[in-house]
Parts: sequence; C-alpha cells; structure tokens
Amino acid sequence: MLIAGIVAEYNPFHKGHGALLQYCRECGASHVVAVMSGNFVQRGEPALLSKHARAEMAVRNGVDLVIELPVYWALSGAENFALGAVSLLAAAGCQRLCFGSECGDAGLLQEAAAALLQQDFITETRERLKTGLSFAAARNQVWAERFGGPLAGLLQAPNNILGVEYCKALIRLGTAMQPCSMRRAGPGHHDRAPLAGIASGTLLRRMITANENWENYLSAESGMIVHREISLLHAPAAAGRIENAILAALRKMSPAGFSRLPDISEGLENRLYQAAQAAVSLNGFYRLVKSKRYALSRIRRLAMCAFLGIEAQAPFTLPPYLRVLAMNPQGAALLRAVKLRGELPILTRAAQASQLSPAARALWLQEQQSCNLYNLCLPQPLPCGTDLTQKLFYLPKIQP
Amino acid sequence: MLIAGIVAEYNPFHKGHGALLQYCRECGASHVVAVMSGNFVQRGEPALLSKHARAEMAVRNGVDLVIELPVYWALSGAENFALGAVSLLAAAGCQRLCFGSECGDAGLLQEAAAALLQQDFITETRERLKTGLSFAAARNQVWAERFGGPLAGLLQAPNNILGVEYCKALIRLGTAMQPCSMRRAGPGHHDRAPLAGIASGTLLRRMITANENWENYLSAESGMIVHREISLLHAPAAAGRIENAILAALRKMSPAGFSRLPDISEGLENRLYQAAQAAVSLNGFYRLVKSKRYALSRIRRLAMCAFLGIEAQAPFTLPPYLRVLAMNPQGAALLRAVKLRGELPILTRAAQASQLSPAARALWLQEQQSCNLYNLCLPQPLPCGTDLTQKLFYLPKIQP
Repeated sequence: MLIAGIVAEYNPFHKGHGALLQYCRECGASHVVAVMSGNFVQRGEPALLSKHARAEMAVRNGVDLVIELPVYWALSGAENFALGAVSLLAAAGCQRLCFGSECGDAGLLQEAAAALLQQDFITETRERLKTGLSFAAARNQVWAERFGGPLAGLLQAPNNILGVEYCKALIRLGTAMQPCSMRRAGPGHHDRAPLAGIASGTLLRRMITANENWENYLSAESGMIVHREISLLHAPAAAGRIENAILAALRKMSPAGFSRLPDISEGLENRLYQAAQAAVSLNGFYRLVKSKRYALSRIRRLAMCAFLGIEAQAPFTLPPYLRVLAMNPQGAALLRAVKLRGELPILTRAAQASQLSPAARALWLQEQQSCNLYNLCLPQPLPCGTDLTQKLFYLPKIQP
Repeated sequence: MLIAGIVAEYNPFHKGHGALLQYCRECGASHVVAVMSGNFVQRGEPALLSKHARAEMAVRNGVDLVIELPVYWALSGAENFALGAVSLLAAAGCQRLCFGSECGDAGLLQEAAAALLQQDFITETRERLKTGLSFAAARNQVWAERFGGPLAGLLQAPNNILGVEYCKALIRLGTAMQPCSMRRAGPGHHDRAPLAGIASGTLLRRMITANENWENYLSAESGMIVHREISLLHAPAAAGRIENAILAALRKMSPAGFSRLPDISEGLENRLYQAAQAAVSLNGFYRLVKSKRYALSRIRRLAMCAFLGIEAQAPFTLPPYLRVLAMNPQGAALLRAVKLRGELPILTRAAQASQLSPAARALWLQEQQSCNLYNLCLPQPLPCGTDLTQKLFYLPKIQP
C-alpha cells in the first residue's frame, strides 16, 4: 500500500487533473487521496459545482478518497491553505505528496522551502514588507538577493510557489511524507485558449457558464456530471447571484468587524471599510482595495470571508476532523486503516458531527453556514441543510 | 396660521394624495406638514423612489414641509407606525390631523379609538389572541360583539382602521390636534385598474416598474421627478435586487436573533427560523411563515427588519428628532416657530446629527445603514453615505 496525496479544487476536474492522477500511479501509488476545497475556492469564489458533485467527479476519474478542506483553510492564503490541506493528507496516512510545478523538481522546491523557513529569511522579508510591498514581492526581493543558480528564478512561477508552500507545510508538520512533483504541461491556470487539447480551469469555467462547447476538454465522467448538475439547475454556481448580498454584508461591517477577518495586517481594515462604503459593485470594491501591497486574490478571499462570517482565530490551526466526501472500495480500505490509527475524528455521515468537540463543532457549523449561503449562488437556489442530507458518494468499483 | 398634518408614504405621490392635500386647504389649513416614511415603507419593501425624490415630489405638489418617519417606525405595525408619525406631527405644531377614510367621519373614528383603548377591551382582545387568531381578527371579533349601529362595520375597512390608529395615537399622546377625515374616493390601495382617473399606489408602482403609460395618473410635477429619477438610474427601486441578500441575512440568523426582532410574539421566532432555513425565495419565505395568526405584511416587515438589522427595544418609544427632507418658504417659517418651542432637535443638515444624544444618534445611524442598503435596490447601485450628502430640497416658491 503506497498512498499518494493530492491537494485540489477540481473546479471542475479536467484533463490536467487527470494527468497528475496518472503521475501518482506512475510514482507507484496504490491509493490516491485528494484533499479538496469545499464549496468555496481559494480565489474567493463559489465553486462552479457543489463539493459533492466535484468529489464524485474526482472518484469517477480515479481518485480513491476525497476529503474536504474546511472553508476556513480553503479561503486562506497559500501558506495556510497548504498547511491545512497537507495536514489532512498526513492524517490520512499519505506517504507521497504529488503536485505539478513548472520546475518539476521536488528536491529544488524542498531546498527552497527550507531556506524560506529560516528565521533570518523571515525577519528580512518582514522588514521589506514595511516598504509597502506585497508579501510575495517582498519575499521575491530577498530571494533574488540571496540565491543564484537553479534556485534564482524558482519563485517566479505560480505552481512552484504553491509547491514550495506544500514543502514548507511538510517540514513544519514534521511528516515523513515525500514530495513528488510532476512538471506541468498544458496551459497555465488562467490561459484563455486551450493548449494541446487541455483547457485551463478558468477557460473551462467560462465555457461552461456560457454554455459553449466544453465537452472535448473534459473526460466522459466529468462531462456527465457537469451535464447532470446543469440539468438539475444545481450548476453553474455564480458569484454574481450573491453580489448584492456580499455588498450588503460589507456595507454593514464596521472597521472593527473588518479587523477580525483572517489575515488582516495593520491598516487594511480601514481600507476595506472605506472601499465597502464607496463601492457599487464587487469588482469596484476589489479595485478600491487593491494596491501594490494587497493582491487581488487576498481581497477576494477577504470579501467572501466577510460575507460568510469567517473570522481569524479559528479554534484550531489545523483542521480538527477528516470529512469524507466520496470514495471507492480502495478509499474505504484506506479509511479503515486511518480509523485504526485514530489521529483525527472521521466523518462519513453528517450525524457523526455531534460527537465532535465543541470547538471542532464550531468549524463544522461554519462549514454548514457556508454551504447554506453557497446554495443561493445556484441557478435555482437550494434550501439550507443540503450538506447534512447529502450522503457521501460511494463508487463500488475502482476506476482504471 | 392653521397647521394641518398628513401621514404619508408618497410611493409615489399621486392624485389621491393631491385630493387629501386639497382637503387640508378646504379645512382651512394655511400650512401642511407631511410625515413621510423614508426609504422603506410599511409593507416591508423599499420605496419606488428615494425619500429625497419623494419629499421633493410632495413639496412640488403643494406640501409645505416634509418630515422623515425614521425607519424603525416606518417598518412597524399600524399602531406603532401611527404613534411615531403622529408624535412628529405634534412636535411640528400641527393643529389638525387630516387623513382619508372610508367612513369620512372623524368623530366616529375617535369614538372607536377611545373604545379600543379601554383596558377591558384590550384584555378581551388578548384573550382571543390565544385562540390562534391574528390581532386584527381577534379585535374585530370583540368589536362585533360589543358594537352595533354606525360603529358595527367600521373596522372592516383598511383606511378606517388606520384612521382609528391615528385617533388612538392622538389620545395616547394627549395632544390637542384634531382629526379631520376626508371620505376616500377613487380606488382602494391595491386596486388593479384605475378608477375615475385615479390609479392606486400598487397599480402605479407596477406601471412604473414595467415602464407602461403611467403619466396620466400623476401630476406634471410628480411625472417630471419619476422621469428624472429613472433616467438617472436611481429608480425604480426593486426588492428583487436584494432578494438573495435578504435570504442570506435570514439564513445567517439564529432563533435568538429572530426573537430580538420588533413585534415578535411567543414562538414566532422558531417559525421564522424554520422558514428561513427552508425557503429558496422571499415569497416562499412569506408563504412558509404566513398563517391565520400572522399577516403577510407583518412577515414582510420582519424579513426587512432582519435584513436591515433593526431590533426591538429601540432606545425611544417615539422618534427623538425631527428631520426635514423638503420644504418651501411656508415650511421654513413653520420650522422657525417649531424651533422656538424647542420640543425636539431639528435636523435640516446631516452634520447636525453629531449634536444628538448618543441614543438618538443610534437611531440616526440605523437610518443611515438602511439608506446604504436601500441603495443596492436601485437600477444602478449608489455608494453609502448619499443620505448624508443629499441636501434637503427647498422650493423657493409656494405651489398653488
């Protein structure tokens, strides 16, 4: 039994995701676990399809076990996002962490991660932040001054950066899990045209939302689920449907309220407050907050956290339970082994949440609340509580 | 100087409103004051046009002074709505209270009001409430058993009922203001077809929203303002634009949150909570809450209060300031006299709100918040703070 782990959003599951799964098998994995963002994704938006549909899609495409990344981590910056996700993969007993990167060299990324975690590097980066740079820019500056050779250009590429965060998480968690990095082919995340028969997630979301010909860019399994969810009016979810709801929530918030959001640095709460009072659209809000110092993705996440009522100081720094969204027999076998080790409570049914500690239950309720609000983004809104009534998806056979 | 007062919503100002104004003059009024609901009206909806536009409309149609009914009272049931409004008219020095009614007999309505305020009547009505009737139905039952003659059918007609509430407010406030009631002609509030050249408010709102031929049913002054506001994309406001925002606010509320809303009687908070969790539209929410005991208008107001963050236990039982939205020279003269009496602080500019007591300021901020959320109902949303920057409308000449 060699268990590989993947961190994913599957928004939707496309051929690039299929290639990484294939890579896991080539690395010798007998079991593949994916930790997947729930109904909201890291760019601060509702996922195109519900987490249940996306988890089913992953298993139908060959993943053995899909675990939910709770919304608090799913809507975090790269560092915390990676930490939450990798901790769940560790709890699931993964021995390999597989991900794509531009360099395709896990050793290099590990080396970079170790360097970034050194105290003097962190101190120096903090100093540069005071000059008004964004965190990424400050870190890149320090990086560029210190490293030459193959490391020099490493932190310029988005998937390398995320890979480094995974490696940092592995180091910080002290897990024996080994990183394995596939060199990414195909288009970048945001590419507007398909490349080598692969469309980026951004392009696919646009095509599906516009009801264009997207079928060729998805596997038959993925396409079936997308069609089904659309015909049920459960997809595509659109942030536009809650735009005024988000703006209303922002308009109601005080500077003190903004200062309680996750990842707020000094003064940002006032900038957010001013923008919330002035903006007449969500894009307008982003534009008003955005600056050299504050990246767009961070602002989008903050706006969504404000709407969902997610604040900093969650009762845990790591997810306190392991919630299964979908699996096949291999995933079920793996889960039995995890259960024996007993590291984290496992939820395969919503009713089990009643056995969580009060603090863990608070995170569970935050998840429920987020799902209830996600349901307003659907073509035909769903009532509250669907996340409680939806059973985990079980595929009785193992996909090739 | 004989000052008459009117309680109004002017949503929009139509020929029926013009007739009541004419009646004030026929009663000998030299000055007419209107207390007008702000951006939200008693049926729990955003007004079709902003309060500033509607106040201007009133003055251009001959009202001398327009005072805002703060949102807490504007979104109250008939009794509290009337109490808040009449108290402002008393503070403005009105000697006559003019309103339309089906019976057109103020003496009869006063008699009814005095009867309704008797303790044994109130006790008896409360007893009937326990049988599951709505307040109106319980009261009508007691009424029917006690009164014959001209009083018997009085409380069957909506404008008589409101008129009785005005008279009750006059009695409770101990003011010398005299009620004068015009017999209503024209269509009922909700009539779907114009009658004698007069269209009901409901019909007018529908025609304006659908961009149908409404011009013949409004005065030239009213029509000009409706056209102007539409061309500025400041009207028509539509509750539909905040439907998901209201649903999101309802989904976020706990039973305890619902129990803090105004006018909640035992058990209603749970009914509201259940409905909020189950409803996928605002009409669905209303349908789920509605029953023999709970009237639709009350549920609509509760939903809007939940969205706006308005709770019971406002710091005052009566509006603590007199805010002027629009006036002409007669209104200005009247205001100088009111100022001399010094009953309530007068706000003619937003900046004066800083001189209010902390408790009165809380109501003022509630008003601001409501305006900021109202601005999301417009065809093109406006930023926050427009109620602070908008000057009161002054018409330098007096309309005939």
